[in-house]
Amino acid sequence: MQLQEMAKNKTVWLSGEGPESEVVLSSRIRLARNISGKPFPARANRSIQQEILNLVEETVKKTSMSEATFLNLSAPGGLDKIDRQFLMERHLISYEHAQANFVRGVMIGPGEKISMMINEEDHLRLQSLEPGFALNNAWDNLNSLDDELAKFLPFAFSQQWGFLTACPTNTGTGLRTSCLMHLPALVHSEEIEHVLQNLSKIGIVARGFYGEGTKVLGDFFQISNATTLGQTENEIVDNLSRVGKQIIDYEKKSRTKLLTESITKTKTEDTIYRAYGLLANARTITYEETINHLSKIRLGIYLGLNLPVDINILNELLLLAQPAHLQEIANKELSSTQRDVLRAEFIRQKLNKTTKNKIDQKKINKNTT
Amino acid sequence: MQLQEMAKNKTVWLSGEGPESEVVLSSRIRLARNISGKPFPARANRSIQQEILNLVEETVKKTSMSEATFLNLSAPGGLDKIDRQFLMERHLISYEHAQANFVRGVMIGPGEKISMMINEEDHLRLQSLEPGFALNNAWDNLNSLDDELAKFLPFAFSQQWGFLTACPTNTGTGLRTSCLMHLPALVHSEEIEHVLQNLSKIGIVARGFYGEGTKVLGDFFQISNATTLGQTENEIVDNLSRVGKQIIDYEKKSRTKLLTESITKTKTEDTIYRAYGLLANARTITYEETINHLSKIRLGIYLGLNLPVDINILNELLLLAQPAHLQEIANKELSSTQRDVLRAEFIRQKLNKTTKNKIDQKKINKNTT
Repeated sequence: MQLQEMAKNKTVWLSGEGPESEVVLSSRIRLARNISGKPFPARANRSIQQEILNLVEETVKKTSMSEATFLNLSAPGGLDKIDRQFLMERHLISYEHAQANFVRGVMIGPGEKISMMINEEDHLRLQSLEPGFALNNAWDNLNSLDDELAKFLPFAFSQQWGFLTACPTNTGTGLRTSCLMHLPALVHSEEIEHVLQNLSKIGIVARGFYGEGTKVLGDFFQISNATTLGQTENEIVDNLSRVGKQIIDYEKKSRTKLLTESITKTKTEDTIYRAYGLLANARTITYEETINHLSKIRLGIYLGLNLPVDINILNELLLLAQPAHLQEIANKELSSTQRDVLRAEFIRQKLNKTTKNKIDQKKINKNTT
Repeated sequence: MQLQEMAKNKTVWLSGEGPESEVVLSSRIRLARNISGKPFPARANRSIQQEILNLVEETVKKTSMSEATFLNLSAPGGLDKIDRQFLMERHLISYEHAQANFVRGVMIGPGEKISMMINEEDHLRLQSLEPGFALNNAWDNLNSLDDELAKFLPFAFSQQWGFLTACPTNTGTGLRTSCLMHLPALVHSEEIEHVLQNLSKIGIVARGFYGEGTKVLGDFFQISNATTLGQTENEIVDNLSRVGKQIIDYEKKSRTKLLTESITKTKTEDTIYRAYGLLANARTITYEETINHLSKIRLGIYLGLNLPVDINILNELLLLAQPAHLQEIANKELSSTQRDVLRAEFIRQKLNKTTKNKIDQKKINKNTT
C-alpha cells in the first residue's frame, strides 16, 4: 500500500460545492482517444503497451498538466490490489482498469479534477470531474487538454466515423458525459422507475455508484449518454445538461412533497433520524449499509432537519468509509469483518467530532450574544 | 381519564431495586379467596356483586390496609377504558378484570406493593409485589393480610380440597407465585426454548409481560407455578425460589458468554448500541419495538457497556411508554398513530435528560479532582 497520503485529501466530486449540489455530487466528461498506427491495448503486446505508456507520460509533460502525478498500475512491487481499488473508489480508474493485466497507468492532475487512464480499453481515457452540476465547465477543461495532446499525439481519426475506439459504442466523439446524482426522494416515492424508463427512451442510461456494470448504492445514480456518434460534443453536453436539469427539478419537487403531508412527514423524518441513530451507534457496519444511511441523512440535511451532522463530514464518510480507503488509512490489509468494525469506529469518531463542534459553536454563539 | 396523578409515580416492580435485580424485575404472590355462601362472581347477579364489593371494602378498612385506595371499575361516569388499561399496564389488574362486565373494583395499598381485585374470577384476588427476587418477602406480606381478612370474612374452605375457587386449577392454596424475569441472553443464545421445556416438566409455566394469555415482549417472562393443589404455601414459594435461582444463574452465565468471544462480543455490542440508536432517534415507535430496544439496552447496562442511559430512566420508560400511560400523561385519548409519535418524543426527552446529567456529572467530577 502506497497511497496513504492521497487518502487524506478530499476528492473534487465530494467537495459538496458547485451548482445544484443538493442533488448533483459531480459532473464528469470523459474522452476516448487512441494513437494512430498502434493496436488497441487488448491487441497490443506488453512492449507496445509499455511504449504507449511512456509516450503518453512524456507528452503530458509538455502540456498544462506537466505537474500531474503518474502512477504505474503494473510495475512489479508497485501499487497493490488495495491501492488499485482505492483509485477506483476515488472514481479515478474503472473497475476494469483496476483488474486488468495490461502494462497500464493513470495520470492524476492537481486536485484530481483532470485524470487519464492509459491502456484501459483505449490508449487514452481522459476524464474531467467538476463538483455539482457543471458539465460545461468539465467539458471546457477537458477540451483544452485534448487540444494540447492532439498537437503531439496523432489520434486515430476517420473523416467518416470520427475518433476511432476499441469498442464501436465509443466511436465518433469518444465522449461520454455523466452526472453522479443523489435521488433519494424519487426512490422513496417510487417515481424513479418511471424516470429511468423515460431516460432510456431518449438515449440516456443510469448506472451504479462506480459507473458501468456497478450497483446502485444509497440512491446515487450515474446518469450518462448512451451514444457518442451522430452528435457534436457540444450537443451531447447540452443534451445531458438539459435532461439533468429536469431530473434535478423532479427530485426537488419530490423532496418538497415528503414534508407537506403530516403522515409522510413523520415517516420521512423517522426514516432519516433512524438512519442517523444506526450510523452513530453501530459497532459493525458494511459500506453498503453506510451509504444507505448517509444517503438518508444527506436528504435530511437538505430538508432542513436538525441533524447533528455536518454536510462535509457526510461527504468525507461517503469517500473514506469505502473498503480500500479504510485500509489505506489503517495502513494494513484487513478482513471484511475487521473492516466493518473499523468502519463503525471511524464513523462514530467523525460524527462525534461534528457533535462537539456544534456544541462548541453553540457556546460561542451564547458568549458572543 | 382520572389517573393522571398515579401515572407520575413509579411502580414497585420497576424500582430497579431488590435482590438479583439484574435479572428479576419483580416477585409476585397472589391468593384467590371466596366468601362462603356467596356465588362466584360469574354466577352472582349485580346486586350480589355489589354486596361483595361493599363487604370487602368495609372489611379492608379494619385491617392494616385501612389507608388503601379503592377504585370502582364499574361505576357509571367512573374509570374509563384508558384508566382500566392503565391499571393493567401497572400490573394491578388482569386483562380480564379490565374488560369484564361485573360490578367490580380494585384496592391499591401504599406504594402499590399490596393490591386486590374484587370480583375478578374469584371474590378476592390478593396480590403482593416486591422488587427483585424476593418471593418470601412477598409471601410474608400477603400472608399477614390474608390472616387479617380471615378474621372478618368467612372464606370458602373445604377440609378435603382447601380453599375453594371459581376455577379448579386455583383450588387448594389458591396461591400463585411468579417472577417477572428479564432473560435476553437466554433468548439471544436460543437456550430459552430448552429452559422453557424443562420448566413445563416440573410444573412451572412461562407467560408474557402482562401475565396469563399475553405475549412475551422484550425478553421479559413471567415464570409461575402451574398447580396450587397438593403442596403447602411455603413449598410452592420455596419451589419457585429454587427454580428461579437456577434460571438467574443460567441467564447470568449466558450473559458472560456474550462478551467472551470476540465476534460474539462485537455482535452483542452492535445489537445493543443499535437498539439505543433507534430508540434515541425514532420519530414514531410502537410499544412493542420500544420494549425490545429497552430490553437490549438493559442487557447492555448490566454488561457494563458505556451507554448514555440511566437504569432508572430505562425502567421508567418500560412503564410510561405503554399506551394507556401515555394517554394518562397527555390527558387525552390518542389514536395509535398519535401515540407512536408522542412515545418517540417522550423517549427522546427522557434520554436527553440522562445524557445531560451524565455530561454535567463529568463536569462536576472534573471540577472536584
